[in-house]
Amino acid sequence: MADWFKMAAPLPDQCAAQSARDRQASLTKPAGSLGQLEEVAIQLAACQKAQAPQINNPHILIVAADHGIVAEGVSLFPQEVTGQMMANFVAGGAAISVLARENNAQLSIIDVGSLMEEPLERVITDKVALGSGNFRRQEALSAAELAHALAAGKRAVERALTKKADLLILGEMGIGNTSAATAITAALTQTSAAEITGAGTGIDETALSHKRQVLEDSLTFHGLDASGEKPVPAPLNVLQKVGGHDLAALAGAYITAAQNQVPVLVDGFICTAAALAAVRLNPSCRAWMIFTHQSAEQGHGHILKELEAQPLLNIGLRLGEGSGAAVALPLIRLACSLHNQMATFEDAGVSDKTKSPQGAEQ
Amino acid sequence: MADWFKMAAPLPDQCAAQSARDRQASLTKPAGSLGQLEEVAIQLAACQKAQAPQINNPHILIVAADHGIVAEGVSLFPQEVTGQMMANFVAGGAAISVLARENNAQLSIIDVGSLMEEPLERVITDKVALGSGNFRRQEALSAAELAHALAAGKRAVERALTKKADLLILGEMGIGNTSAATAITAALTQTSAAEITGAGTGIDETALSHKRQVLEDSLTFHGLDASGEKPVPAPLNVLQKVGGHDLAALAGAYITAAQNQVPVLVDGFICTAAALAAVRLNPSCRAWMIFTHQSAEQGHGHILKELEAQPLLNIGLRLGEGSGAAVALPLIRLACSLHNQMATFEDAGVSDKTKSPQGAEQ
Repeated sequence: MADWFKMAAPLPDQCAAQSARDRQASLTKPAGSLGQLEEVAIQLAACQKAQAPQINNPHILIVAADHGIVAEGVSLFPQEVTGQMMANFVAGGAAISVLARENNAQLSIIDVGSLMEEPLERVITDKVALGSGNFRRQEALSAAELAHALAAGKRAVERALTKKADLLILGEMGIGNTSAATAITAALTQTSAAEITGAGTGIDETALSHKRQVLEDSLTFHGLDASGEKPVPAPLNVLQKVGGHDLAALAGAYITAAQNQVPVLVDGFICTAAALAAVRLNPSCRAWMIFTHQSAEQGHGHILKELEAQPLLNIGLRLGEGSGAAVALPLIRLACSLHNQMATFEDAGVSDKTKSPQGAEQ
Repeated sequence: MADWFKMAAPLPDQCAAQSARDRQASLTKPAGSLGQLEEVAIQLAACQKAQAPQINNPHILIVAADHGIVAEGVSLFPQEVTGQMMANFVAGGAAISVLARENNAQLSIIDVGSLMEEPLERVITDKVALGSGNFRRQEALSAAELAHALAAGKRAVERALTKKADLLILGEMGIGNTSAATAITAALTQTSAAEITGAGTGIDETALSHKRQVLEDSLTFHGLDASGEKPVPAPLNVLQKVGGHDLAALAGAYITAAQNQVPVLVDGFICTAAALAAVRLNPSCRAWMIFTHQSAEQGHGHILKELEAQPLLNIGLRLGEGSGAAVALPLIRLACSLHNQMATFEDAGVSDKTKSPQGAEQ
């Protein structure tokens, strides 16, 4: 396997970040009073090496795959939904379809490992397997499948870049992928799976307790459980043993975005688990990530803390599909507009630059 | 004083709310997985008696006033900033100016009691006083001034309605108005002012301790302090004694919006204090309010809890001007688009209507 994914991404431009911070301090508002909107404008200015950060061509990439772990009864929902939802994405009826239209964003759906034998129209098929292995009893992916999935994520980003994407939103669809994401998170943070296993779309207490046991057993089976004595397992090993095609493709995509100096929005629990794997594989990609929301899924807060990430939204979203990131996109655009268009104290002739004025809460 | 502000507003349409809830349950997503976006779409559908809630003509109303309490040294900032910022609002350089443009919202600035002797161009002047009294030593407003300010808020809303506003955003500007909002909140919730006094734009510990003392003394002076023995003071009494022209105008505006069945976005600490006074004056207006953010100002969480409100954003905003509400507007518009445009299970041919599909976190 070529180590393309270990090549360091450049750091976002620190001069541009400093200029952006200086500009924020000169605008007609109390210093810091736009909170996280100031921080995201500064981060984007650094990523774009720009005085006036802007998002003209956001591109949403959804990777879809099926998961063998579903055979253990960890999900309420039939696997055919993965394919049906891909069809819904391209037909325009899913949440992410609506959000792509309203945000003027391009939307690409990539089947990186679903059970669908025939390619779906308007879905890009880039897979070498129909679903992953049941990781309770075997590896989720072979080494070759892992390499393919990582590279499928890379290819997806590269295609978006040829279409001039200036911001990426990654999303996913795959019945069972919360289980894989939970196993990855538990292994990479050496936490008990039981602690971070959530009810997902609403399995009951009995099913939840079963899911916890399945995940604990799986981690033990692969020697990935939190023993407190072993070193933290390597991210590639974790992605292969208890991951999935979608999760590996996401990890490859986060890294490729950073290597190409394009900022990327991180969605909910599954995407953030893949982002954690990507950061462990290649820490340089962290600086290109913008965290958009904290989902209702248990365990998401745990990974966000691990990544020292402070997301923009916390409104009980738990849909996936990149939908939380797409909902946050208008906030990020407004952060840019405020940064670029507000008057400075000097321009506006407002008193007391050091004692800045306040609209309100003084 | 005519009791126009006590006339009950109708309840938002409960049939429309139920239809909207039913529609949410039929859309291709796990039930409840769009979190607060579902709730806001349902609330708007009820307010608009509509199957497809939408916001076509949002109107931002900013009321501005000066505050006599500034003489006690409670604010870092010179009072001339109130007028300078009004000029900045109409010139297009303030945060709210940018947000109005980006949201395609109308913006009206109303001087309800600033110290400006000459009317500013493009600012509506509707006042009978230059600033309020220093409520540490006298009433903030006379009874006639209070009546005028409440009615100024009413007139502002009525003007926006003649311009076909279908959603209102209220905001404020006034050096010193955090002190008035804190005093109102303490009196109406019978809490010690010291507990909820915040650092605002960043006064230091000594100044903060002084501000606390000034507010405690003011409440005692007017017999509005938390004694645990008296009944909770009447909202009109509180607005008159320790309020201000801007806060009273906001209260009148919230009530008028509800009486005219127009939903209204509630911004930060000062607006929420006025909203609390409005709800105490006329509880029927609560159902027409959408709470948009929790500001960094101490005390805001306290009022939100009192109003049983769960705002959309919590990103450290503390600018006022209605800016937090305007930042949340795109989320509310996306909530409508998702509600109106997503496919149902039946439309999309997605399996298992009762066991809904999930993009992700299953």
